[in-house]
Amino acid sequence: MKRILILGAGLSATSLIDYLISKSEIFDWKIVIGDMDIALAEKKTNNHPNAKAVRFDTNEIEKIESLVSGMDVVVSMLPARFHDLIAAECLKQGINMATASYVSPYLLQIDEELKAKSLTFLNELGLDPGIDHMSAMQVIDRIRAKGGRLTAFYSFTGGLIAPESDDNPWNYKFTWNPRNVVLAGQGVSQYIINGRYKYIPYHKLFERVMPRTVLNFGEFEVYPNRDSLKYRKIYDIENIQTMMRGTMRRPGYCEAWNVFVQLGCTDDTYTIENSEKMTYRDFINSFLRYDLVKPVEEKLCENLNLDPDGETMSKLKWLGIFEDKPILLNNASPAQILQKLLESKLSLNKHDKDMIVMQHEFEYLLDNKLHKIVSAMGYIGKDTVNTAMSITVGTPLAIAVKLLLTDKISSKGVIIPTKPELYEPILAEMEDYGIRFIEKESVVD
Amino acid sequence: MKRILILGAGLSATSLIDYLISKSEIFDWKIVIGDMDIALAEKKTNNHPNAKAVRFDTNEIEKIESLVSGMDVVVSMLPARFHDLIAAECLKQGINMATASYVSPYLLQIDEELKAKSLTFLNELGLDPGIDHMSAMQVIDRIRAKGGRLTAFYSFTGGLIAPESDDNPWNYKFTWNPRNVVLAGQGVSQYIINGRYKYIPYHKLFERVMPRTVLNFGEFEVYPNRDSLKYRKIYDIENIQTMMRGTMRRPGYCEAWNVFVQLGCTDDTYTIENSEKMTYRDFINSFLRYDLVKPVEEKLCENLNLDPDGETMSKLKWLGIFEDKPILLNNASPAQILQKLLESKLSLNKHDKDMIVMQHEFEYLLDNKLHKIVSAMGYIGKDTVNTAMSITVGTPLAIAVKLLLTDKISSKGVIIPTKPELYEPILAEMEDYGIRFIEKESVVD
Repeated sequence: MKRILILGAGLSATSLIDYLISKSEIFDWKIVIGDMDIALAEKKTNNHPNAKAVRFDTNEIEKIESLVSGMDVVVSMLPARFHDLIAAECLKQGINMATASYVSPYLLQIDEELKAKSLTFLNELGLDPGIDHMSAMQVIDRIRAKGGRLTAFYSFTGGLIAPESDDNPWNYKFTWNPRNVVLAGQGVSQYIINGRYKYIPYHKLFERVMPRTVLNFGEFEVYPNRDSLKYRKIYDIENIQTMMRGTMRRPGYCEAWNVFVQLGCTDDTYTIENSEKMTYRDFINSFLRYDLVKPVEEKLCENLNLDPDGETMSKLKWLGIFEDKPILLNNASPAQILQKLLESKLSLNKHDKDMIVMQHEFEYLLDNKLHKIVSAMGYIGKDTVNTAMSITVGTPLAIAVKLLLTDKISSKGVIIPTKPELYEPILAEMEDYGIRFIEKESVVD
Repeated sequence: MKRILILGAGLSATSLIDYLISKSEIFDWKIVIGDMDIALAEKKTNNHPNAKAVRFDTNEIEKIESLVSGMDVVVSMLPARFHDLIAAECLKQGINMATASYVSPYLLQIDEELKAKSLTFLNELGLDPGIDHMSAMQVIDRIRAKGGRLTAFYSFTGGLIAPESDDNPWNYKFTWNPRNVVLAGQGVSQYIINGRYKYIPYHKLFERVMPRTVLNFGEFEVYPNRDSLKYRKIYDIENIQTMMRGTMRRPGYCEAWNVFVQLGCTDDTYTIENSEKMTYRDFINSFLRYDLVKPVEEKLCENLNLDPDGETMSKLKWLGIFEDKPILLNNASPAQILQKLLESKLSLNKHDKDMIVMQHEFEYLLDNKLHKIVSAMGYIGKDTVNTAMSITVGTPLAIAVKLLLTDKISSKGVIIPTKPELYEPILAEMEDYGIRFIEKESVVD
């Protein structure tokens, strides 16, 4: 019998928990689910005899010692900031660990110790990071194996609303943490095109979009992610001349979102005095020049060169940014005010479904010819609990935990799924769950 | 006999040291000048029998204890980050202190202790902060005294090149820390106009300029400083409906500087890979879209909507941003690369003179009429040692130290010069040094 501790029973843990419980009899697993909301954890056990709920509050992190004790693996679905503390305890007690989050600097520090203790800490096993690594590396390794030289790699992911639930002019709803959406792209975006480094400051990011079509999911636009350069090392393609990762939105989203960026509405570094006395119209006006006569709408169109009757202005009007409706937030940052407005308009309805799209594009030279591979995946969620986001984050992590507990993973230390022993079985099994990449290969004339 | 310790003998300390030495016989002062460059400190004593030089290295900050011992006042001209350490020692030994820098959070903490020990710590006694506070408060207090109600206050300062040394298309040279000029304005700028809060993000700042004429110094343009709102409290005008502080440049500077802001060249938060192998042309190109055919100049003009034959493009070409000249900086941030280029073109020549301009504009209601006062000061430096910057920073601080040592300052604790007992005598004596405000008052029809 093996024992699994899952920390965090929130939305994103649903698929993971369901998968592990469904395999618990075959493999003889006992599963403990810890959450500060014990009722939630109990619900997630589905009354299965192999699963039990315990109360675990991250404010009492010292209780982790006894919780972890005797486990074979600890899976953390908590916010990423707690992972290092849990990792330290797992290291101490000699227990394996798994998360969907990025490898932290602390994990890199303990890598040698983990190897010395023959422990495996699995990371970046969700959607992005996760499925992106696995699906990209499978193609990259295949190109390498047949002697091709990779010259360009683009990789795009989007968490969006499914076409059947797409009923607003932004063609967007929040299917994940709204705060992250509001702050997305802040800092500088770095990539490389034909050997030239490219740096895009945040205030230019949403103007640098590229159109893309994905399978039968229709049209999208892509803006570059923050750091595409670091993936050259992760994928062992350090001499590649073109490398860019990006985020997908429906066409027109970026032009409208850029209005908030240009105005300064996404700034989270200061608070607005008397925000509790302001309306959304006052809020927008506070970023525009004082004018005794001109209405806010006119000043905005002039300042950002917008067509008063265009698509972007209809998106903005639909959101209610010009309405004299009170904000009712004390001492709020612009980003917090914007988030409140967006949440009132762009949240999922009870019957909405979300959608994940991912597309990789590879160019490589083989036999003096330039080849192109497009590999794309689209996945639509089942409902507001079994969302595409939670299924695509939880399923690869759950499969990886199974592989670990059934001794299919030989790698020790801090692992991300860029090696065949992980990506091959995980990608193969994910197809059973409908998470599947479709490939098109062509030779460029 | 009173003893003065001056820490730091750099460029900005020249006027201060000269002033205090010149008064040392009348008032029977002994002056100790500490600098890590003992030769520099010795030179600044001018062989005066009342002055002596000591070696003081900020890397051996523990030596401060014995240096400070027995002093009546310690004047710190060191970089502001050292002031708290020195202040703590002065508090311990019961010695007064003076600087031209902003009041730090630490000073606010020890204010009560200082008062209990009857100590006076003078701060913000340079140009800006310093002369700006004093000259503004003198007018504000006068308006209040005659029963006027202040409705608007604008205050603008510029450190620029004197007209006789103005020989480049930017009408600008570095007369102070170049790094601060490159990073100027980052963050959000906050002010209030007719009761409406206004917030300008950095990427819009240099587009929001206002034209101004100052005395017979000609035409300028002004961009808003970061936080104008906090000055409402400092000047005890918390209900004012219009308040903005700003920085003055010659017309056309901001439009050209904005090109660097828009591109992202002033970013100091990341480093550019392989910067040592790049030319300035590569550097500019790295912020523009990849294009197989179009030259950098054309891409820049298209991206930022610049006239290829306009003033801004000639400013940029004059700087050499399109030249294939190697940068020769390892792992540099964009801001560091830009600074290196600017320093090669915009540094002071041997015979150059600098210039300070400051202008306050007040509007107030009295007897149901709207009055306007414009109060302006312009000051041209003597040479590259006795710069306008060093004279306008050092003179008010030196006069304040004299007032303190001659028991003319009754205030205890942490002081800035917003009270008449400071601003009246300092502004009066500064006139002897040619630092003088000219006022124009009018009634608005």
